[in-house]
Amino acid sequence: MRIHDWPTGPYPARVRIALTEKNLDSRVEFVRVDLRKGEHKRVDFFAKNYSGTLPVLELDDGTFIAECTAITEYLDALDGTATLTGATPREKGIIHMMSKRAELELLDAISVYFHHATPGLGPDVELYQNAEWGLRQRDKALRGMHYFDAVLKGQPFIAGAAFSMADITVIGGLIFAALVKLAVPAECEALLAWYGRMRERPSVAKQLAIPAPTRAPD
Amino acid sequence: MRIHDWPTGPYPARVRIALTEKNLDSRVEFVRVDLRKGEHKRVDFFAKNYSGTLPVLELDDGTFIAECTAITEYLDALDGTATLTGATPREKGIIHMMSKRAELELLDAISVYFHHATPGLGPDVELYQNAEWGLRQRDKALRGMHYFDAVLKGQPFIAGAAFSMADITVIGGLIFAALVKLAVPAECEALLAWYGRMRERPSVAKQLAIPAPTRAPD
Repeated sequence: MRIHDWPTGPYPARVRIALTEKNLDSRVEFVRVDLRKGEHKRVDFFAKNYSGTLPVLELDDGTFIAECTAITEYLDALDGTATLTGATPREKGIIHMMSKRAELELLDAISVYFHHATPGLGPDVELYQNAEWGLRQRDKALRGMHYFDAVLKGQPFIAGAAFSMADITVIGGLIFAALVKLAVPAECEALLAWYGRMRERPSVAKQLAIPAPTRAPD
Repeated sequence: MRIHDWPTGPYPARVRIALTEKNLDSRVEFVRVDLRKGEHKRVDFFAKNYSGTLPVLELDDGTFIAECTAITEYLDALDGTATLTGATPREKGIIHMMSKRAELELLDAISVYFHHATPGLGPDVELYQNAEWGLRQRDKALRGMHYFDAVLKGQPFIAGAAFSMADITVIGGLIFAALVKLAVPAECEALLAWYGRMRERPSVAKQLAIPAPTRAPD
């Protein structure tokens, strides 16, 4: 398998964490797509993923699978034992709900903020910006942090009693929040305590230790 | 099971189609939440679904499961035979990718257009609108129709050789497109032919036959 990837991207981080959780690191080759050069917005990349986003999993038969949830479903099913996406109907439902909610209310909202209300990836890549929309999404993400804090006051993980894909999605959100310097409010004590525990997981610690790529000479 | 629902909503349609495909209609009670009165944007509803959207599945133990993909995962797993969300890792990956892509590039884009660049559900519900963003999402949805048309030139269903959750998501998109009078371009012949076949499926025909609710006297 190959993963079209950017090493410090918050969405690629979700798949890298899932890979380590599933002990699949040794089976994957990473192919770097330079976000800062807009390599994900070029015609040859659109043929791999119409939406022009990273990461993309490329199977050995040439099939491309984009979207973090879809890639995680694939990886989690490979060994016949779903540990990230749920084993029972109820687990599947709750994990998918909470992971989607983490996208809507946190990770994707921060992404829109980054691309629309900050310089984002720079003027060569951000060809259209809607700052008003971006700022509203930032505020939505801050409310989302309070929501997940409330969830974590009542249970140890985002989807209940066990670590899952939903935790990974919130981790992706907090990685993106750090990149855009959107601090988690200090009163979100349960969320901060949970993130402290998450950072100790080998899969997350490994991801957070990746140094930011230096820009190649133009 | 109960489903908090609005009978002609494009998102609720996704779950209603999945229910019929899984022969589960007789096991569900529908609870009407009046979108036009903004009943989905009230505090008591936010306790069921933080994101304030329909549909929401309520299990007999009181658990709420929101988000169509999550509800479909739950329903599809109940009988131990996944027919909508994929049986193999590759099927799961492709179906989830194509369903998410149908949200991003079609259904969700039309929803943003409706809520931001048309009167939407009316001034009492649409408390903030960003028309510029809404119009861009409309254009994105039109491009999305061309994308899915290209997909269907090469295969009979959205995710490949079999009907799946991904088809249901595109159907939801075309139901929403009809509501907002966003016509599928005539040159999208493969998409239109596919939709003609989909409308003949009992699960889809049943949904399309539901009359629009009349507004109750205020």
